[in-house]
Parts: sequence; C-alpha cells; structure tokens
Amino acid sequence: MASETGWSLHPDRALPSDPVVRPIAREILAATATLPIVSMHGHVDAGLLARDEPFADPASLLVTPDHYLVRMLVSQGVSHDALGVPRRDRPGVVADPREVWRTFATHWPLFRGTPTRYWLEHVLVEVFGLDERPSADSADRLFDLLSERLEKPASRPLALFDEFGIEILATTDAATATLADHADLAERGWGDRIVPTFRPDALLHVDRPGWQADVALLEERSGVSISGYRDLLRALEERRRVFIAAGARATDHGHLSADTTPLSDAEAERIVSAALRGDVSAADAQTFSGHMLFEMARMSAEDGLVMQLHPGVLRDHDPAVAELRGPDVGYDIPVTTEYVRALRPVLEAFGHHPGLRLVLFTVDEDTFSRELAPIAGVYPAVRLGAPWWFLDTPDGMRRFREAVTDTAGFANTTGFVDDTRAFCSIPARHDLARRIDAGFLARLVAEHRLDLDEAVETAVGLAYRIPREAYAPPKTANAFPHLSGSEHGAKEHK
Amino acid sequence: MASETGWSLHPDRALPSDPVVRPIAREILAATATLPIVSMHGHVDAGLLARDEPFADPASLLVTPDHYLVRMLVSQGVSHDALGVPRRDRPGVVADPREVWRTFATHWPLFRGTPTRYWLEHVLVEVFGLDERPSADSADRLFDLLSERLEKPASRPLALFDEFGIEILATTDAATATLADHADLAERGWGDRIVPTFRPDALLHVDRPGWQADVALLEERSGVSISGYRDLLRALEERRRVFIAAGARATDHGHLSADTTPLSDAEAERIVSAALRGDVSAADAQTFSGHMLFEMARMSAEDGLVMQLHPGVLRDHDPAVAELRGPDVGYDIPVTTEYVRALRPVLEAFGHHPGLRLVLFTVDEDTFSRELAPIAGVYPAVRLGAPWWFLDTPDGMRRFREAVTDTAGFANTTGFVDDTRAFCSIPARHDLARRIDAGFLARLVAEHRLDLDEAVETAVGLAYRIPREAYAPPKTANAFPHLSGSEHGAKEHK
Amino acid sequence: MASETGWSLHPDRALPSDPVVRPIAREILAATATLPIVSMHGHVDAGLLARDEPFADPASLLVTPDHYLVRMLVSQGVSHDALGVPRRDRPGVVADPREVWRTFATHWPLFRGTPTRYWLEHVLVEVFGLDERPSADSADRLFDLLSERLEKPASRPLALFDEFGIEILATTDAATATLADHADLAERGWGDRIVPTFRPDALLHVDRPGWQADVALLEERSGVSISGYRDLLRALEERRRVFIAAGARATDHGHLSADTTPLSDAEAERIVSAALRGDVSAADAQTFSGHMLFEMARMSAEDGLVMQLHPGVLRDHDPAVAELRGPDVGYDIPVTTEYVRALRPVLEAFGHHPGLRLVLFTVDEDTFSRELAPIAGVYPAVRLGAPWWFLDTPDGMRRFREAVTDTAGFANTTGFVDDTRAFCSIPARHDLARRIDAGFLARLVAEHRLDLDEAVETAVGLAYRIPREAYAPPKTANAFPHLSGSEHGAKEHK
Repeated sequence: MASETGWSLHPDRALPSDPVVRPIAREILAATATLPIVSMHGHVDAGLLARDEPFADPASLLVTPDHYLVRMLVSQGVSHDALGVPRRDRPGVVADPREVWRTFATHWPLFRGTPTRYWLEHVLVEVFGLDERPSADSADRLFDLLSERLEKPASRPLALFDEFGIEILATTDAATATLADHADLAERGWGDRIVPTFRPDALLHVDRPGWQADVALLEERSGVSISGYRDLLRALEERRRVFIAAGARATDHGHLSADTTPLSDAEAERIVSAALRGDVSAADAQTFSGHMLFEMARMSAEDGLVMQLHPGVLRDHDPAVAELRGPDVGYDIPVTTEYVRALRPVLEAFGHHPGLRLVLFTVDEDTFSRELAPIAGVYPAVRLGAPWWFLDTPDGMRRFREAVTDTAGFANTTGFVDDTRAFCSIPARHDLARRIDAGFLARLVAEHRLDLDEAVETAVGLAYRIPREAYAPPKTANAFPHLSGSEHGAKEHK
Repeated sequence: MASETGWSLHPDRALPSDPVVRPIAREILAATATLPIVSMHGHVDAGLLARDEPFADPASLLVTPDHYLVRMLVSQGVSHDALGVPRRDRPGVVADPREVWRTFATHWPLFRGTPTRYWLEHVLVEVFGLDERPSADSADRLFDLLSERLEKPASRPLALFDEFGIEILATTDAATATLADHADLAERGWGDRIVPTFRPDALLHVDRPGWQADVALLEERSGVSISGYRDLLRALEERRRVFIAAGARATDHGHLSADTTPLSDAEAERIVSAALRGDVSAADAQTFSGHMLFEMARMSAEDGLVMQLHPGVLRDHDPAVAELRGPDVGYDIPVTTEYVRALRPVLEAFGHHPGLRLVLFTVDEDTFSRELAPIAGVYPAVRLGAPWWFLDTPDGMRRFREAVTDTAGFANTTGFVDDTRAFCSIPARHDLARRIDAGFLARLVAEHRLDLDEAVETAVGLAYRIPREAYAPPKTANAFPHLSGSEHGAKEHK
Repeated sequence: MASETGWSLHPDRALPSDPVVRPIAREILAATATLPIVSMHGHVDAGLLARDEPFADPASLLVTPDHYLVRMLVSQGVSHDALGVPRRDRPGVVADPREVWRTFATHWPLFRGTPTRYWLEHVLVEVFGLDERPSADSADRLFDLLSERLEKPASRPLALFDEFGIEILATTDAATATLADHADLAERGWGDRIVPTFRPDALLHVDRPGWQADVALLEERSGVSISGYRDLLRALEERRRVFIAAGARATDHGHLSADTTPLSDAEAERIVSAALRGDVSAADAQTFSGHMLFEMARMSAEDGLVMQLHPGVLRDHDPAVAELRGPDVGYDIPVTTEYVRALRPVLEAFGHHPGLRLVLFTVDEDTFSRELAPIAGVYPAVRLGAPWWFLDTPDGMRRFREAVTDTAGFANTTGFVDDTRAFCSIPARHDLARRIDAGFLARLVAEHRLDLDEAVETAVGLAYRIPREAYAPPKTANAFPHLSGSEHGAKEHK
C-alpha cells in the first residue's frame, strides 16, 4: 500500500486488525515465512518453464491472460479487444501491449477490495519493484519500468522459480500430452520440482466437439487402438503410467456435477460405441462422465495418483463470447453443487481404500459445513482442497476455515492449493493463504480455544507439511482390501 | 440508545467495535454524512406526498402498515386485529390507535437485535424527538407526544422529504397507474425529485385473479385494444413511454423465479389467448411470466429503463390469512433462487447490450458468492442491488459486501436501495447502510488491503455517485449492436 | 488450556477477543453463570441414570460412544476396531479400554479447532480434574487418574447430575419404550427432573426393516390391536398419553425431509395395509412419513406435546459400515433441506393453533436467514431450536444468531438444546452456548445496537427462562379454534 515514500507492502497486511489477535497472528505467520512453496495444483504452462525465455511484455504477462482481471474490466464496459484477448475471426491481430497496459492501469480503482488487487500489488511491488500505483498518469512510466525488468536474466521463469522459493510445482496436462517439456526439464535436473498432472476431461465428455480427434490422439500417444469402452480404459491406464513415470502426483477433473454413478460395462460400451460413431446423446454423455469419475477413482485406488475433483462450474455462460474468443475469458459461472449423494458410489466403493486419496474442491460455499466437512471428517480417503477460484480470497479462506474446521479439523484439508495460471502471482497467493490461516489460528488462541504452540505447529503444517503429505508420490498398486476395521486405509497413506 | 439523561442515538452506532477499525470507520462515515439521499426504489405512496396532509396518528403511521413489525408481534401471539390490520370480513372496523400503540410499546423488547429496532429508534429519537424507550409504562405519554408532533407543519410529508435530505425518490406504480399524483407533484415543481417506477407484475402473471380486469384497465390507460399477445406488448410499450415521460428511471419485477426463457411468438400468443378466455393453466402462466421477463429486458435494452428483478419470495404462505387480510401482512417467505441458468437467455441476448441495465436483488444469500457476484463481475449489463428485505440488516449488508466484493468489486453494485414503504424510516435505513459500508471499508484499511483515500472515495461513491449513475435517466433507444468487442456496452452507460 | 502450572480452563474462553467487546461479554456471562441447566432434548439413556452405577472405564465413557470423536479418528485412518466400536460379526469381542484410550490420546492434536476439543477439555479438566493434555506420553497416567476418579461416589451419574446443576433433563425414548427407568426414577423423587421424550420415528417409516416387529411391540405396549391406519393412530395417541403422564414435554422426529403433506385417509389406509403385508414401496413409505408428520402436528396441537423436527440428515452414508457396525458411528451426512414448501401444510393447518409448539432444527445453515427465520418470525406456533449437530459449534452458534436474529429476534428461538448422548459433556455444552450468546450480545452492545441491561436480560432468558417456557408441560387438550385474529395462539402459550 502507499507509504509516504512510495508504494510498499505492509508487513501486517491481511492479518486481523483486532489488537489482541494481530500480535499473535504475526508470531504464527513468522513461523511460516521462510518455508518453501509447495504448489501442487495449478495451470502454469510447462513449456514456459522449459523454454525459460524472457516474458514478452507487461500486458501479455499480467493483463491479457488473467481472467479474473479481464472479467472485471469487461464487467465495466471495457472490451476484450482493448485487453488484447484474441478473436478467432481476426487471427494474428495483436493488441498494442502499451495500450492494453494503459487500459488496465486506468481502471485500477475497480479492483478495490478484490484478491486481484492484493495479488497484483504483491507482484508489482515485491516481484518487480514498482513504486507507484497504476493509474492513467503512471501507466507509461510503469510500463517502461516493467519492460526493463522483464529483460533481466533474474526475471526469466526459472530464475523466478528459485527466487519464489518454490520447492515443487505441478502443472496440468491433457491426458494426451507428450510431456516433452517435462522430459526436457527433467534432463536439466528439474524433474523433481516440476511435475505433470493428469487431466483427462476432454476424453471423458464424449459429446464435446473434438472428442473423436482427442481419441485418435490418445490412440497415438498410448499405442492402444481404441474401438470401444474397454480400449478407452486401457489407453487411459497406460497414459497414467506414463504420467506417473514422469513424476505426476495427481489427476484433475473438471466436471459440471460431482456425480459418480457407475454404469454397467454393457451400458458404458454402448455409449462409447455411439460416441465413436458420432451419434451420442447429451444425456448419455453426461451419465458416462459420471461413470468415468467412478473409474478414475478406481484407477487412483490402484495406481495411487491423488484424484482432484473440481465440480460445479458452468463453463462459457455466454456462447457467443465463447464462439468468438474461446474458453477461459471470464464467462464461467458457478452453480449449486451436490456432493453427498453424488459421491456416494465412489465412497461406498473406495472411501476406505488405502490407495485412494480424493481431494474435493468447490465454488459453492454453501456446501462447506453441510456436505464437505462431514464427508472429509469421516472418510479416510477424502481431503478438502483449498477454497477455489471465486472463493480463493481473504474472506473466502476465512469462511472456509470457520465452516469446515469444526467437523473436519485441519488434518482433513490439503493446505493451500494455488490453482493459478499466473506464474508471477504464486508467491502472492501462498503469502495470502498463510496470512489468513495465521489470522484464523490467532483468533482461536485469543479466544483460548487453542494454545500458541499448537497454533504455530498447525500453521507450519498447513503451509508445508500437509500439502507435501497430501500429494505424496503414489506408491505401487495396492491389493484391494475387503472392508474391515483393521484394514481401513489412512489419509496418512502409511 | 438509553443515555443517563434520556434516549439518544450513539454517534458510533453500528460501526465495528474493534478499537483499530472504529476510528477509521468514523472518518470514512464523516465523508458521507452530509450527502443527499438517493432513494431509487421503494414503496412510498405518491399520493401521500401529493396530498401532503398530516399523518393521522402514531399507530397508522408507524405500526399497522409496517409488515416487519407486524410479523414479529404476530409471531409472539399478538393478533393482527390488535395491531389494526384490517379484515376483509369486517370492512370499516378500525382499531383504536392508542390501543394499537400500547400493544406495540409493550412488546418493544421483542425487537432486540433486529433492524426494526434500529430503524424505529432512529425514527422515534431523530425524527420525532422522543426521549424514552417504548414500554407499557411509557406508551400513553409517548403516544401523546407523537400525536402532538404529527400535527406540526414540519411533520408533513413534503416537509420531512426536505428535512430528510432526499434528493430524489422513486415510487413503485402499477403499469396501469394514472400517475396523476406524479403529474400533480410535477406541476408543483417536484417532478425531478419524485419519479414513478413501472411495475407490470399484475399483467405478466396471466393466471392471477383479476388479470382480465387489469388487462381491461391497461386497454383504457394505453388506448391499445388488446385481443392478443402482440397487443399486450404494444400496450406495455406504450405505458413505458408514458412512465418515461413522467420521469421514470426503472421498472420493477417481483417474480417467484428468475426464469427468463423466451417462448416463440406462437406459444406466447396461444397462452395469452387462453388467458383472455379465462382458461389458462398454472404451468403455462408460469412459463409465460418467464418469457415476459425476457421481453421486459428487450424493452429495457430499447428504451433504457433500468430493469430491477426481485425474485425468490413465496407470497402469502398462509392462504387463510391472505384471504382474511390480503397481501403484505408478513406471510411472504423466501425460497431458494437460481440465477445462473435462469438468466442465461436474457444475458445471452442482452448481457452486452449498451441499453440494458439489469439490477438483481435476492433474499437468498447463498447466491451472493456463487451466482450473483460472478454474473455481475463479467456481464456489463448487470449490477447487484442492495441486500433486500430480510437481508437489509446490519449483518446482512456486511455479509453481502464480504461475499460479493471479491468478485464483483464495488462498481458492479448499485449502492443502497431502501425498498421501504415506511417513509419516515428512509433516513434511518440510508444512515445504517452508510455505517455498514464505512465499517466494511474501514476493516479493509485496517488490514492494509485498501488505502484510506480509496476507502473514502468508495464510501462516497456507494452513498451517492453510484446509485445516481446506476439509475441515471434512460437515453433514447439504442440500435441493437451485434456482439463484438468494441461495441460492448458499459455499465457506465456512456 | 495449558497454563504454566498445568492444564486449566481460561475464564474468558470462547469470548470475543476484541478488547472492547470482551469486558462486556464477561459481564453478560456472569449473569448466567449460576443458572441451572435446562436440558430439554438429548440422548442420555434413562437407564444409566436409573441404575446410577459407576462408569466402567474412561474409554467406554468418553471415547467409544462419542460419534463426533470416532468419526474424526476414522477420517485419519484409525479403525473403528481400535476405538472399541463393536462389530456385528464379532459379538462379545471387546477392545482393551486402555488401548482405546491410548489411541485417542495419541491423536489429540487432530481435534484442534473443533468443538470436540472444547467439550473434552472442559470434561477432563473441570469434571475430572486432569492436569495435562492427552498425548502418547501422558495417556497411561491419565487413564489411571480417570479410572480412579470414576470409582468415587461423586462420579456416579446422579451425583454428577446434581453437581452439574441440571434442573431438568429430557431423554429420548422410542414410542414403544416401557418407561420403566423413568418410573423407577420417579419413585425415587426424580420424576420432575428426568422426563421422557416421545420418538416414534421407527413406526412412521413403514419400509424400515423391523417395522412390523415394532408395530407388534406397539400393540403390546398400547393395548391397541393394529390392523390398519386408524389403529396405528389410536395406538400412537395412547402412547403419547402414557408419555405425558410420565412427564414428557415433547416429541422428536428425525426425518430425511421436512415434508408434511397430508394424505387422504384412504391413501394412508392403503399404505399401512401394504406395509402390514410387508409389501410397501419406498415411494409410498416416504409419502406416508410426511403424512405422519402432519398427524403428529395435529396430535401435538391437541395434547400439547412440543413437536421437535430434526430433518435433513442422510443416515448411514456407507451401507457396508452400517451393516458391520450399526448406526450412529459417524456416517450420517447432512443434505440440502427445504422448509418453506415442506412445512406449508402443517403451518396452514396449525401454524396459529394455540396448542401447537413446533421447534425446528437444521444442519443446513443455508436455511437460517432464507427460510427458518422468516417462518419463525411470523407463525406463532414455531420456534427455532439451537444450531444442531455439525452446527453446534462456537462459530456455528455465532452464525446462527447473526443470521436469524434480524428476522426472528431472540424470543422465537428456544435457547440452547444440547442434544447430546455424552452425559459428562452437558455442562461444557451449555457453558459454551452461554459464552457464544454473551459474545453475540456484547457485540450488539459494543456497536450501540442494544443496551447492556437488555443484553443481560436476554442472556438470562436464553440460558434459562426461554427453554423452560418453550418446553413447558403440555396443557390439557384445546378445542380447535377457527382461524381468526383474536384467537391466534401465542408462543407464550398463555
């Protein structure tokens, strides 16, 4: 925030203001300050890291690809064009970065009170050393300053990776990805620090345009010829093995609902056959995607990849915008999500399986205390991921802890998951999460519901130990145990 | 609150108690203290203002018509009769105002912790100068004191209007209203300060008893003979023109759901024809009301009236009470409301139209972060109205800001909308909203998430600039632009 | 919490930390500190009290039967076996209490931030005088210490009952219970302090395994031969009379939904006949259970028993666990609950009946402001019970007051209802509830929204007067009044 001598970050930012709580929060936060960053789920492009080239310009780094930022400006009448978001009907037309930056800087006041403001402030001040708020007046000077910084070797992706103190970062990769960038990075000694994540969404939604092309690609990558459902499963299993060999810790699934109802093999076969013929109904495709979540859980129980479920977002709410601009430009809107009945099939089958680790995310905070905490608070296979997307905010994270800790405690959560595609914002996001957890724990101490030593230990756990453990590398396949007390699997994955 | 020497309002009331936050909140509040009141949606009767007669007595002014107050007393076993709420089976029977007032005063403790208490305290102390809490003991003395005050010229409606610092007030008027009171007021120079709002609910729900009579009245008022759907549209469009000429800024729509699915013209025609014959099904009527919301959005895009949507209240939950007492006596109960899919047709069609300004209200706070903030945070046509009705409370307003600011910021809201039929409570309600916003902004400052200058500017915006801009007079009709980046409409309505 | 010289409870625990609010909260709390405990709904076994034998050991008292505690340990991979939860396939196998206690003590850190931690700390420190946190190291010493304490006469159930300051405690009893323990206690002078509650769930769900056996038992207990629906009603009415004679104040109903739609007599007869033949569909059974809630409300209106409704929990989410271990071992998960339409039939019929007192509970906090407060804030028959189960937590209780007080005030709630089967935790739970209410009221005072004298009076009401009044003994049957203003019943049950 603005100080007398320029722009700086307040050391107590995002800590509770209560004069009793704040000093406690400071002490708790201090214990996590030097811990490395464990970034187990996000959307940073592995190619960006493998190429390790300087970032092109401030706009294409910080403005155009950030859909949080773009949507806010669009909501106030700024056009996507003015922000440099490409159009399919004008390929190759590129916006002037300085103009894009000016548009953003002029609208800086729109972000008041938002997490975008918090993250950007951190990036601009802490990562790039800016000394003045963006505004119409400062726009050009800041653009020049940033451009200069971006040219320095210290601003290249891998240099920043070290500078940020990232111990490990998981990318998100299509099931059909070659993983060539990961192989390249591994050869250069980054294999333990940059790992892929298996994301088979495109293949599990059999009515998506392009599904058949994706299946063809899957055949090519997996070496499995796919003429039906069984082949599809085999090809996916094969790809999982390749991902595991490349260091993957987890899978990731973005579905509209959390439904996991399994189908009979015959039903599944019928639907895949129809889809291969290009003749599948939307209803069948929906049913099949639920079935495949069940199958993904089965595979995770067997091969040990952590299964991450991100349901409840209606993508591309405005189809005309999607047609013109493609996905991820700000038109994804959350809908009510039901977990209790939807997950019952998977939890009946694998909820106590020692091999399954299922991480649940939500953009529907109404489920925090009603559904998510009670599920994670009894099934050993389940943990709650961090508040996601629209809830990855100071108050969202606070409400999450307030609503789920009662029933799920801290140990049934994963600690912070940044889920970002904005590479430079990773430290800001982890910093903010640590501050919110410190504040929450400090309140418990101030209310004499927790001792300080416990709070410090918990904060360190949430910042470092718990996410490492939650996303520990898969063990080799477990035999499937029969349900019985002594054989219950543990989240600790002993 | 009670002081040693009587009853008074604490200058810090409703500000956060945190000793770090409160002084900041005080400073922010001070910047809004002298700003005029912009009251852009409410239910004050234009006739009350046009007649400008003294209020009859304390009970009929403050007790009987206030459904917040009535419902609380009824919930504790007080009868509607004892509160003077008229019965259809005993027309002309009027309760003794003094007795009604006594009943209310005796039950004063019931209102502890409620916004009714806050508003009433403000009205009784600040507007009418009472010096003692209502109680069985004080009831008669206070009744006499109030009665005396009500006789003074300074207590007449228009005198209070000035005294309250109201810059502009919008009433709510049936589509078939003559607007005679508004014309009368305009002649006397009040035309810019008291404006009508177009509320066509009665005509859009074709299975309501009385619909045919309302259509007949619409024919009379509009001069359009209505023999089918097309005529109905034309008559409504004609009435909108008359409302605009009378200064209207907005329309208002109270529907059970937010559904906006359009029908084909043929379908719409079929349903209206059936309704005109008195033979329409409830299902068709429901479908048609959704269709008409779509049509209302189209008309707003064309004529520029702000479209206000108030969905999600099940009216007259107890039909026997409704039969005996009529509507608005406390038996309206909120239900779950879905916005994302329901509004998709309107947003696809007009979400980027420069002419549409759509203000969304809710009594279902579960939609704050999940649906409303994400929608308003991307579609330029949409703003979020203030927390409504059961949520128009200190904590409700705080939760609203905490849940929507992350994704929608401040600029995608309308600032405060009082929505009251209790004329004397208008200053109390705006005062409270300013205090809550000041408290929320002060917390952001105290947590170093916002600078004080930004907080002050935002508070002034929310109290005055933003509602004025959100309900700015309609421009003349816009041509309908094709969807494209550069033609995106702006909330700023440039 | 840990002090320098051992383990103790901080006098300010669970009060707000804000230095302005805390002293006010302390003062409010002090006014309730010596009030007796009114425990009007819980699951303590009357036999435990009637037998009045020493508790067997620390594990079977504090660990094994506490499903809050068991579910948390299970969620982290501890087996039910290791916690002593019996298995149906190994009857008679009993876990070693010391081993069970060690397992619990070792996992003590899991409970950080949970209400279980708060309650247990209170029990261990305040009731049994432990001086050290449970841990692997302290486990054996604490087990020995506890075992020794449990042998003392002062640790017997009835001695503790007195020690805890319990004025009255209601147990929960099947409709077919003999109430022999209550009779026994009554003979020994405890009849006014330990009363039964009528819970007919087993008989109202006609497709439950064992329903026919329960009907046979009902025939035996009631002396009514049951060959159809009318007989079933008569038998239930007869049992209610017996419960009332034994001092019962209330009924209790645990249904999946809050549906209360009545059936015609013929329909009800058809379903009961089918059920008696063992040939009822799940859909019919579900419909019938809603109908029977309506009938229960009718009976309550007639005989004056308070009707408690606990809907919205999906029991035995994992059927394999239920098969192996039975119910109540941690696998009950809340689901979305709808009250507005579901309760409409009952409220239309009896919502203003002077005989009906309906207490609503929820595990779906999304209904607090949207449905529950608006319903309780107008219907004289309805009160809101305390936040239940997963919401019976410091933050859950705070959110309840923050969300419902605006519309329902304090008088339309019941005050605290502990609903516990953990006898020794009763004082802890009431203590915590009083602290949260004191903190909530203190904030209102600090924000100048309530005067201190009002806050103190309200706190005393919530802790003592209001629950006593809400569960006052039934009066004799009322004639059914026609709906009219002057005959509206009152919650005060005058």
